[in-house]
Amino acid sequence: MAVQIPETLLSALLQGEKFLIFTHVRPDGDAIGSAFGMRSFLLDQGKKADVLLPVDPPARYLKLGLDSLREADSNDYDTFIALDCAAFHRIADNGVLTNLADKSRFFSLDHHFTNNVDCAGFNFVDSKASSACEVVSALAFQSNLAFSKQTAEFLLTGMLTDTGGFKFSNTNGDVLRMAAKLLDKGVDFEKLINILFFSKPERQLRFESELISSQIKVACGGKFAYAFIPQELLDKYNFSLKEDEGIIDLLREIDGVVIAMLVHKQEDGFKVSLRSKDPRYPVAPIAADFGGGGHLMAAGATVELPEFSDLEKVFLEKVSAVLNG
Amino acid sequence: MAVQIPETLLSALLQGEKFLIFTHVRPDGDAIGSAFGMRSFLLDQGKKADVLLPVDPPARYLKLGLDSLREADSNDYDTFIALDCAAFHRIADNGVLTNLADKSRFFSLDHHFTNNVDCAGFNFVDSKASSACEVVSALAFQSNLAFSKQTAEFLLTGMLTDTGGFKFSNTNGDVLRMAAKLLDKGVDFEKLINILFFSKPERQLRFESELISSQIKVACGGKFAYAFIPQELLDKYNFSLKEDEGIIDLLREIDGVVIAMLVHKQEDGFKVSLRSKDPRYPVAPIAADFGGGGHLMAAGATVELPEFSDLEKVFLEKVSAVLNG
Repeated sequence: MAVQIPETLLSALLQGEKFLIFTHVRPDGDAIGSAFGMRSFLLDQGKKADVLLPVDPPARYLKLGLDSLREADSNDYDTFIALDCAAFHRIADNGVLTNLADKSRFFSLDHHFTNNVDCAGFNFVDSKASSACEVVSALAFQSNLAFSKQTAEFLLTGMLTDTGGFKFSNTNGDVLRMAAKLLDKGVDFEKLINILFFSKPERQLRFESELISSQIKVACGGKFAYAFIPQELLDKYNFSLKEDEGIIDLLREIDGVVIAMLVHKQEDGFKVSLRSKDPRYPVAPIAADFGGGGHLMAAGATVELPEFSDLEKVFLEKVSAVLNG
Repeated sequence: MAVQIPETLLSALLQGEKFLIFTHVRPDGDAIGSAFGMRSFLLDQGKKADVLLPVDPPARYLKLGLDSLREADSNDYDTFIALDCAAFHRIADNGVLTNLADKSRFFSLDHHFTNNVDCAGFNFVDSKASSACEVVSALAFQSNLAFSKQTAEFLLTGMLTDTGGFKFSNTNGDVLRMAAKLLDKGVDFEKLINILFFSKPERQLRFESELISSQIKVACGGKFAYAFIPQELLDKYNFSLKEDEGIIDLLREIDGVVIAMLVHKQEDGFKVSLRSKDPRYPVAPIAADFGGGGHLMAAGATVELPEFSDLEKVFLEKVSAVLNG
């Protein structure tokens, strides 16, 4: 069923005149797209709207033209919107929302089924929506207000990145129809696709090819593919994992693989990303066992263990149990 | 503009009762999808319909369930349909069409702007259509006849492969709306995507990573990426280029690359595949210079030259001229 925004939320939101918009820490394509799409939609309506982005977004999205604030004073705004944020502590708010005494004009729009942003005046979650961008698009079309192709371009961004370019299990007729309506606004789709999917730095391509040659392992009768990314390999190619969300798809695209896992070491432990290709074998429960979260088919966790070999052993058991269970 | 099938063609075609369906030699996803989609649509209507496929289709498409004939007698049929065939000599007809004296019941439905199948009783070409599958889908919906999710699955196949999963420049609102309508028929999209895009044999992944490490060159200030595929590399990984249509996308996805070229040696010369990411620099004219053809942004040719180094020199000049012209 297509996303339906409650009319009470829509009219309350549009009563605002000065908007401050937030998204989650470590913003991805959907975070960027929904935040800047919402901003652009509100600017189209002649309202004041700013995005608060405490850190630089991934470089590839800069080509979309991102105009944001590093800090903000809540007194300058009458309405606050968090987009794509499943938990309050994950909102990159620089303290602004935390210190906001009256949260009645704080709106949260999201699509994570784990969402628990209960302190918002309005918290709308449609976990069937592919992306926060699909939610914002529904809001924009439901308002019957005109909006620009710039707005449509931002909203397509998150729809494309969160569905892996209309490939993941969250793709359906409603998403495609919504994307078609956005395309009809005159978006330069080719330019957008080139930015989002055909802009891999040559050093990343070479990094990936060495990762494949040297690190990928396939286990559980070909159903589980995983790789550990050594820091030395990242250094060799001057590559940062923040630059790309798609490395794990190298594993997922292998024939017969059902669950894919990518691991790299961070200061606070091993960061584990998990993906499933089959809804009968969801990865969210595995991530939850380690205090992680995400979606049923795409989840992650931070795991504290001494060595990768320890983690490997634990996850081989966990994944094997899911695949056999 | 959405594909419009002439009503005269539609009603003439549906007057048939016994259909023989053809597609082009070296069938790709769109050839397979449109031929078997048309067959399935006609079977849905209670008609007799066969696909003539003189050779085995690429292995990955077998998972779709392809039931075809290796040879056929034209006397068993009253209607003949060629799908996705730009030239008569490229139809894999096993002589059936060639020997057909009366071609008034021979229908050709295609989307190549170079189409010249003029001997058909009806030759419909919409070069704005993304794929032959989009043309057949338009025909199916325009007929107002019910059809199965199996038919929809075949038709989505070619729409997905010819648009590179809704990424290439032939993607627009009309394609997405058509795909959405097909999805609404109840297609298991996840299964289809896994077959088409997430079924790369592990040996292919390893073949690709060695190809990247050892063969990819980037020239023309980063705008031209190309690779020669040595037969030894194919042999090493027991990999055949017939297994995959996507190798060239490894080159295309590099940031800054405008034109990508993949070359391998065949008995009759070097087979050259060309792709462009920018409509200002089409590759069809380059292919045409060597007697090749295809689409503006995706074309190919067979080139007779002694060594790859000779070819490399010639194409560096040609591509450079296009990029600077």
